Amino acid sequence: MADTVIRSRKPATSTRTPAGGAPAAPRSAAEAAEPRIDVSAVTDMLLGTWAETRREAREMIKDPAFWRIDGLTVAEHRERVLGQLHLIVEHGASARAYPEEYGGKDDNGANIAGFEELVLADPSLQIKAGVQWGLFGAAIQQLGTTKHHDAWLRDVAEMRLPGAFAMTETGHGSDVAAIGTTATYDPDSEEFVIHTPFRGAWKDYLGNAALHGRAATVFAQLITGGVNYGVHCFFVPIRDENGAFLPGVGGEDDGVKGGLNGIDNGRLHFDHVRVPRFNLLDRYGQVAEDGSYTSDIPSPGRRFFTMLGALVQGRISLDGAATTAAALSLKIAVTYANQRRQFDSGSGTPEVVLLDYGKHQRRLIPRIATAYAQAFAHDEFLKKFDGVFGGSADTPAEREDLETLAAALKPLSTWNALDTIQECREACGGAGFLAENRLVGLHSDLDVFATFEGDNNILLQLVGKRLLGDFAKQFKGADAAALARFAVGQTAGKVFHGAGLRQLGQTVADLGSTARSVEFGLREDQQHELLAGRVQRMVSDIAGRLRPASKLSPEAAAALFNENQATLIEAARAHAELLQWEAFTDALHQVSDDGTLQVLTWVRDLFGLSLIEKHLAWYLINGRLSAQRAGAVSRYIDRLCLRLRPHAQDLVDAWGFEPEHVRAPIASGAEQARQDEAAAYYAALAASGEAPVSEKSLQKSKR
Amino acid sequence: MADTVIRSRKPATSTRTPAGGAPAAPRSAAEAAEPRIDVSAVTDMLLGTWAETRREAREMIKDPAFWRIDGLTVAEHRERVLGQLHLIVEHGASARAYPEEYGGKDDNGANIAGFEELVLADPSLQIKAGVQWGLFGAAIQQLGTTKHHDAWLRDVAEMRLPGAFAMTETGHGSDVAAIGTTATYDPDSEEFVIHTPFRGAWKDYLGNAALHGRAATVFAQLITGGVNYGVHCFFVPIRDENGAFLPGVGGEDDGVKGGLNGIDNGRLHFDHVRVPRFNLLDRYGQVAEDGSYTSDIPSPGRRFFTMLGALVQGRISLDGAATTAAALSLKIAVTYANQRRQFDSGSGTPEVVLLDYGKHQRRLIPRIATAYAQAFAHDEFLKKFDGVFGGSADTPAEREDLETLAAALKPLSTWNALDTIQECREACGGAGFLAENRLVGLHSDLDVFATFEGDNNILLQLVGKRLLGDFAKQFKGADAAALARFAVGQTAGKVFHGAGLRQLGQTVADLGSTARSVEFGLREDQQHELLAGRVQRMVSDIAGRLRPASKLSPEAAAALFNENQATLIEAARAHAELLQWEAFTDALHQVSDDGTLQVLTWVRDLFGLSLIEKHLAWYLINGRLSAQRAGAVSRYIDRLCLRLRPHAQDLVDAWGFEPEHVRAPIASGAEQARQDEAAAYYAALAASGEAPVSEKSLQKSKR
Repeated sequence: MADTVIRSRKPATSTRTPAGGAPAAPRSAAEAAEPRIDVSAVTDMLLGTWAETRREAREMIKDPAFWRIDGLTVAEHRERVLGQLHLIVEHGASARAYPEEYGGKDDNGANIAGFEELVLADPSLQIKAGVQWGLFGAAIQQLGTTKHHDAWLRDVAEMRLPGAFAMTETGHGSDVAAIGTTATYDPDSEEFVIHTPFRGAWKDYLGNAALHGRAATVFAQLITGGVNYGVHCFFVPIRDENGAFLPGVGGEDDGVKGGLNGIDNGRLHFDHVRVPRFNLLDRYGQVAEDGSYTSDIPSPGRRFFTMLGALVQGRISLDGAATTAAALSLKIAVTYANQRRQFDSGSGTPEVVLLDYGKHQRRLIPRIATAYAQAFAHDEFLKKFDGVFGGSADTPAEREDLETLAAALKPLSTWNALDTIQECREACGGAGFLAENRLVGLHSDLDVFATFEGDNNILLQLVGKRLLGDFAKQFKGADAAALARFAVGQTAGKVFHGAGLRQLGQTVADLGSTARSVEFGLREDQQHELLAGRVQRMVSDIAGRLRPASKLSPEAAAALFNENQATLIEAARAHAELLQWEAFTDALHQVSDDGTLQVLTWVRDLFGLSLIEKHLAWYLINGRLSAQRAGAVSRYIDRLCLRLRPHAQDLVDAWGFEPEHVRAPIASGAEQARQDEAAAYYAALAASGEAPVSEKSLQKSKR
Repeated sequence: MADTVIRSRKPATSTRTPAGGAPAAPRSAAEAAEPRIDVSAVTDMLLGTWAETRREAREMIKDPAFWRIDGLTVAEHRERVLGQLHLIVEHGASARAYPEEYGGKDDNGANIAGFEELVLADPSLQIKAGVQWGLFGAAIQQLGTTKHHDAWLRDVAEMRLPGAFAMTETGHGSDVAAIGTTATYDPDSEEFVIHTPFRGAWKDYLGNAALHGRAATVFAQLITGGVNYGVHCFFVPIRDENGAFLPGVGGEDDGVKGGLNGIDNGRLHFDHVRVPRFNLLDRYGQVAEDGSYTSDIPSPGRRFFTMLGALVQGRISLDGAATTAAALSLKIAVTYANQRRQFDSGSGTPEVVLLDYGKHQRRLIPRIATAYAQAFAHDEFLKKFDGVFGGSADTPAEREDLETLAAALKPLSTWNALDTIQECREACGGAGFLAENRLVGLHSDLDVFATFEGDNNILLQLVGKRLLGDFAKQFKGADAAALARFAVGQTAGKVFHGAGLRQLGQTVADLGSTARSVEFGLREDQQHELLAGRVQRMVSDIAGRLRPASKLSPEAAAALFNENQATLIEAARAHAELLQWEAFTDALHQVSDDGTLQVLTWVRDLFGLSLIEKHLAWYLINGRLSAQRAGAVSRYIDRLCLRLRPHAQDLVDAWGFEPEHVRAPIASGAEQARQDEAAAYYAALAASGEAPVSEKSLQKSKR
């Protein structure tokens, strides 16, 4: 609907250069009379490898039964979302990742892709579906073995067995290894005794726990024969068919949350609850009848991280859903900014469209570029996940890379979603604060993305430690060549594709001169050099500062690490930004249409330059940019924003959201209609000869 | 409660330097064995000039009847807040600004101060009270004359006459001059005809409009004798005693919002509604029986801005309430971060308290410094307001300064509140996402502060234009002395106190050597020079770039301004930051206690250095800092954070919030109690000799 309204308006000269001083920049690619993107081809790019599944999911959620309704009570919202999960089962869209014998499609990538699109309908639906099929179900699938799949997986897929994923405890969130719940094996009865020994060990914040869950996959310290074998996962029934807690099980409702109130989060505790030995999900660790423990992975640490790694898909789907939500916000805010007028720029002239203001361009257009970069990085990420979990590229090294990638990308995209949604909300003024226009709901619902499935700062710290580890491995002797090899090893070519080391700048050289932005010496290859060089330098600096640690007391070593913690997290962020930039640049390689290549190259440049501007002080302090070139960065960004201004609508339209996905009245064309009505009123009044004269003109005529 | 729990814990050595490598920094001033602040004296400083009224208001809202309840329906929440307004009347706290003859106290400063504290109870209550007494009532008080006061003010004060403030229209928010509603004088009947000629002219987003308002102060284009005299305000009854719309009046409910759902925002429209001539609030413009128009202010533009300026108090109260909300969030997050432990830093060691992590310190402690700076700036701001509106310092220049100050400070504090609340929410992890812990509610409710009562970006642009205007006045000839005079004229000494120009650095020299942070050459006087110099340079640069505008066509001039819009807004922000820094420094002057002076000087330094770090690239590009000194800024901030870490709890406790104001379970000591329980459990288990051994130690013993 929005598209129709915008595009049906002729690019009349009077609109383009209103008399009296409104900025004269063209507002659409047609007006600009320059290359424009092939919108539907870009839609295909953005939808990525699993475009077909995404389109299927988007078609399904055109049904209003899936849409978020504002102002429901918590109880009503929970009930509605529960019903939506059953609807998804009816559509056969519940469990694309599961093996076919349990009603699935054996398709890991499609499963995540389809699931991510649900965020457009209601983030509560997306996350509750994720709890049921992606966490509770995936624990059974990934941590259990065939006997467990046979026992439960089809019921999980078809929502006959709703469940909670009981990992987090009130006392322990990200630090899963330290949880307090125990599962002690009793060889006499061949049962595990699940027990919560103190209040801090209650399972907490669990979706499906407050009301709907009949069972839970409970993480607990496995104790047998007097030995604690660390955290393992157990299938534990928690409620009977009437919804009452089973003996020994108790819990509480987490109550109202900042968002996602369609999900019944709650707490669970266990008082010596007995489950059969069978219920240990024993893919990575087994307990025999006599209580003896076996595992293919002898190292307790590696076993623990392997089990956690099997559940990486949650982080992947948050990366994708956060990107989609940011894109939706931009679609709403840019559409409105192309219609809404405010303030004339001189007396009596037509008011100016918001997106013609320099500041408004600066607020919205670079965020479009970030959303594009994230989308391209996400597709690479999803392909890697599909390779690992589908088995076509499943090695320990690939798994480790995948986890690092998840820990790098999820924080950036989830934080960026909050930032983008908030900026869009403010850019729409009071209208942006109304629930009907979606932005405030998206912000509330996505808020927790920054801390669940791994706290963003802790995830980035993990990435930082991995970078330090890789650096230590690579860096034998203090030569510059080793440093360069290290930096190259951290690029997307290696991380996404595991394809060995590419030479720095190789990506770049292939793009050809049309794709180059030669202004101010900040071309593509230089962007890459600046971004990659920053990662290399930050990591090597931190490694240098930490080198004395091995000779220090544990206290002093910890203090030294702590001093560098914030910087290490910053280095991890720089690494993730580089990966996003490279994914964007790789995507440009696939473009054959000249107009699309031209415009998307500007968008990629805007993304790269915005990153460099964000870290400009670092580049100056470290002598990577002269003051003169640094000063040019911001001016170049201003220029890119102005250059992309006519393409802004195309770029947000290319996400392919239909009116049933957008649903915000301010992006429906209503604003344009109101303005047309007002303009017609004033025109008719003027024509009638009965319009009042202004006091000002009266004063002038009296002089 | 939180205080008790924290302070009753002895600074035992085992807590301070846990074995095995946890960071060894002290966690309280007592542990640090160094000067500490006098907490209650700092509370007095933070409560400021109207401390007594603030304490009175805080005492009143200890009654749970005033507290926000999460999970109410919109209808229930609205009803509850309406009841709270009546309660406030019962407490005699409704209208401290009104003249005594109408039940007030003739005390403008106290009125705002008391009103701001309501944010601790429920931001919806604060804002609905603001709508009723601060907007609807203040329009009658400030824009009307004695006859209007006699007619309505007591009923407004005592809530017998609830009303809406009908300024904003769907089609026009910040651009009030362009509203479409008309008030046409009919001399035959001596009535004004209030009319909404098209949908965009509907009044929108008005508190009290959807349900409770019986009347509205309606802003409309005043037309008499065929002349439009611009926007004036009219008292228009809208509902009868049963709550039904009066003939010709209609409206809609704005529905669910992103927050503040205790307020019944809605739309109003008028179909040739007639009100008596009496109902024109005619302090600044009068219409005689025969329709002739008179005003003491001949310029339509100045008259318009005078009327708008009379309503500046809304912006002031948002500045104060936003600061209080940020402080409350920090109280919650810091208290939790001083109790919550997560991850041991070596095997088997006690877990580390969150605030001992370098990154966590970096996240929270600089934000404490910002909240302090805002509080001190706000008190100066409020004193200035009280001087102008109380009549002791009411000149056009003072009024203009006050409005500029409002436009400068409100954007910074309202954005900072959102930033701080969000960081605190994330710093509390999943617990921070639960409504019971307050942070998500505060974020939702304060979100709209950034765009109502003047969009933040537009307000800053106003400030920027004022700075340019002052610059043009000051700048006769291109000599450096004139530039320096300009910069000094923009400092707090001038802006807050209208006290003429102080010399650059004067404030600073008086503080004495103990207050100086000599490290790295970034002492107080240099902070001031850097902050003030940046304002001066940015404004003069922009003025230089805009100089050609006078010779350009209106279109080209507008385009040139537009190119500089984002930078002008940034210059305004720099100006506001300088004012906050100076207000903080002025407050330090009042401190006599050595420990307090020492610690607050560190806090002020942290604020100053954080501002400089934020704009570090600018300082480098403009040659104000060498790369070496710039590199020292971040290290110095790290060091200040570590130095202030033991004082963090004192600093947030000094806001003086009591348990009835905090109310967040995670800041109640419950976390500490859970940890004590868990520790006791593990200690007892170890003592019993029945604790399982870890697999790892078993593997070691087998080797």
